[in-house]
Amino acid sequence: MNPTLESVSRLQTLHCSVCATAHSPYSLQRVSACCHMPLLAAYDLHEPLGKDSINPLDGTMWRYRALLPLLHEENQVTLGEGFTPVLNLKSLAGRYSLQSLVLKDEGQNPTGSFKARGLSMAISKAKELGVLGCIIPTAGNAGVALAAYCAKAGMRAVVAMPRHTPKAFKEECYWYGAEVQLIDGLINDCAAWVRQANANGALLDVSTLKEPYRIEGKKTMGYEIAEQGGWQLPDVILYPAGGGTGLIGIWKAFQEMKALGWLAPDARLPRMVAVQAANCCPLIETYLGRQANAHHYVGRPTIANGLAVPRPLGELLMLDVLRESQGTVVSVADAEMVEGMRELARLEGLFVAPEGGAIWMAARQLLQSGWLQPEERILLLNTGSAQKYLENVEGQY
Amino acid sequence: MNPTLESVSRLQTLHCSVCATAHSPYSLQRVSACCHMPLLAAYDLHEPLGKDSINPLDGTMWRYRALLPLLHEENQVTLGEGFTPVLNLKSLAGRYSLQSLVLKDEGQNPTGSFKARGLSMAISKAKELGVLGCIIPTAGNAGVALAAYCAKAGMRAVVAMPRHTPKAFKEECYWYGAEVQLIDGLINDCAAWVRQANANGALLDVSTLKEPYRIEGKKTMGYEIAEQGGWQLPDVILYPAGGGTGLIGIWKAFQEMKALGWLAPDARLPRMVAVQAANCCPLIETYLGRQANAHHYVGRPTIANGLAVPRPLGELLMLDVLRESQGTVVSVADAEMVEGMRELARLEGLFVAPEGGAIWMAARQLLQSGWLQPEERILLLNTGSAQKYLENVEGQY
Ligand SMILES: Cc1ncc(COP(=O)(O)O)c(C=O)c1O
Ligand SMILES: Cc1ncc(COP(=O)(O)O)c(C=O)c1O
Ligand SMILES: [Zn+2]
Ligand SMILES: [Zn+2]
Repeated sequence: MNPTLESVSRLQTLHCSVCATAHSPYSLQRVSACCHMPLLAAYDLHEPLGKDSINPLDGTMWRYRALLPLLHEENQVTLGEGFTPVLNLKSLAGRYSLQSLVLKDEGQNPTGSFKARGLSMAISKAKELGVLGCIIPTAGNAGVALAAYCAKAGMRAVVAMPRHTPKAFKEECYWYGAEVQLIDGLINDCAAWVRQANANGALLDVSTLKEPYRIEGKKTMGYEIAEQGGWQLPDVILYPAGGGTGLIGIWKAFQEMKALGWLAPDARLPRMVAVQAANCCPLIETYLGRQANAHHYVGRPTIANGLAVPRPLGELLMLDVLRESQGTVVSVADAEMVEGMRELARLEGLFVAPEGGAIWMAARQLLQSGWLQPEERILLLNTGSAQKYLENVEGQY
Repeated sequence: MNPTLESVSRLQTLHCSVCATAHSPYSLQRVSACCHMPLLAAYDLHEPLGKDSINPLDGTMWRYRALLPLLHEENQVTLGEGFTPVLNLKSLAGRYSLQSLVLKDEGQNPTGSFKARGLSMAISKAKELGVLGCIIPTAGNAGVALAAYCAKAGMRAVVAMPRHTPKAFKEECYWYGAEVQLIDGLINDCAAWVRQANANGALLDVSTLKEPYRIEGKKTMGYEIAEQGGWQLPDVILYPAGGGTGLIGIWKAFQEMKALGWLAPDARLPRMVAVQAANCCPLIETYLGRQANAHHYVGRPTIANGLAVPRPLGELLMLDVLRESQGTVVSVADAEMVEGMRELARLEGLFVAPEGGAIWMAARQLLQSGWLQPEERILLLNTGSAQKYLENVEGQY
């Protein structure tokens, strides 16, 4: 029996991101059994599907139901995530003589960051596949989101987080009833603890790209950027890359929309810029050929907690996106991030996470170097609100 | 010349809420010149206006442009406020055997509360009318919102806030570049300071109901409740009332929609419940006849900072709403609010402000007393996120 019967979802299969082998989307999957690498969801995009499949009454990421992997609506675990506003940054554009500068504000998601998208999707699918509990290593925001969505779903949540993470992240997890393990180190050390604590596999490990559905939630940012821009994409998108699901997800959305004919066949896709913290920038090191890959990269903490990801599993996929899109990767120091936050707060009324400060400073860098032109349409993807980071930047307004 | 020419806005005039005298909407107004009481905006609702005037592509409160007072779009000061999700609280409903329990989550607004709606509107109109700076007495959230929207508009912002307000409120104001005055006392003491500091009227005083437009932003919650409910209203709405703009605004929206024919002529409107803090419940005292009015009421601080409004200017308007809707008013103690927050976090994945905890506990009270029936469709209006209140409820999860 085909479980997609009577589902609006076009989900077809899961492909290994390395060797393309197909794996069943009807049973619980983690990394691919073939290569132990990320699995990516594939949809039936040949059967025509119009933009009228988008539900305009749904002000969340679930408006794109046909292109999401959830089969049955009753399994949906939602807190209202997605369809965040794209704001015109007129004052900043004026100050820097830019023609078109916009910011998509993911800080307005439930739990204050774009992680809500990925975890809403992953927990919905986990529910659909009968999972009773989840575990996650996190730099902060993903853990809070997991805690919230598991509470909503009635599932157990175990969160491993660096001990130095600001208190607001931990406290919010406790409110949702999650079990929190504090770890000395960064997210890779949390991941090591998770592997050990969950050696028997009793809990679903929802680490970035170790299950195939968080990225499907994240890709909705790409659909929204297109829809909210009237199906015209910006020239450049700046994204703060840690594990990279957003970067990979947005690019995946663009490919799907091309296949569906939702974008002009000759549409130029945006150049994708991965922004990293100077304290932890494994992608730059690989991109510039200073290391073969990030497998042994050692990072340091940064005030942009979400960027402290020294050894991202999706490194190759991220580099693919940079290459295919003719993008680049940039690093920003902590002090510069604060300067970016200040400028966004004072001129645009936006209290963005240090990750958001970083992307604006990266734009300034690329404008100065000439890689970005003032006439280009620039989109900043602010991934979170500064609320929970207050203790990282106290008094630095 | 009529400045509404070429405007999509149906704004017609401003009426004194006491004597109904009309005042011009084309010049800057404060309270009514006739009675020194709140002015309310009136629209041309006779000329037919269909629901197709709603812009479905606009995922903010501005989708109702025709029924908002802004004349010219270029004056719009927006951070993406409104069109917040209405969430189904299935677990809580299950635990308490309720048929239909939903929550509208205003914590997902810019700056983390529903105050964003009122201030977006007030600052947009202030810009349209040539204002260069604003001043506000606040319990916290309104001040943060003012600071953000003034930053966006390039206006000066002066915020007077009780000294005991959690630090997160103050810090966020500083980030936006606002001037913050800390006051020993509650919001009425802040208001006294504002009157003195702004005696020359150099700044626009955007105190609750002292200018006519914040309430127009707030009323969009009413439009959304109708639209998101498929034009069927709930039986009961619970709202945490301080100054009361939300209560009054939502009720105003229902009246406008009736006049427009957007609701069935015989549609029963919801019973409106004002929820107050036990530490500061002037409305209950007046409602129960224990005082003639709140003019001399003395309140105490509460962890629900937004409810510490001892002498609301809109008292009469709020009592009108309670009477007309056959609603009621309930008070909730601080410790109960925390219990409500805990239940919403653990069962529904929602980290709501103490004000949100209060409305859920009020619903439980009213269910117990029989005023509310388990079969009724209940809507909780959660006005803010708990983020900035952490220090009020630390470790109480
Ligand atoms: C605010 C914020 N921005 C960016 C990132 C990086 O996201 P990703 O790991 O999907 O690249 C994170 C991850 O924790 C985050 O919390
Ligand atoms: C979270 C929250 N809820 C409710 C209120 C009360 O709102 P109103 O004064 O419009 O009744 C406030 C006011 O500060 C608030 O911040
Ligand atoms: Zn493989
Ligand atoms: Zn009058």
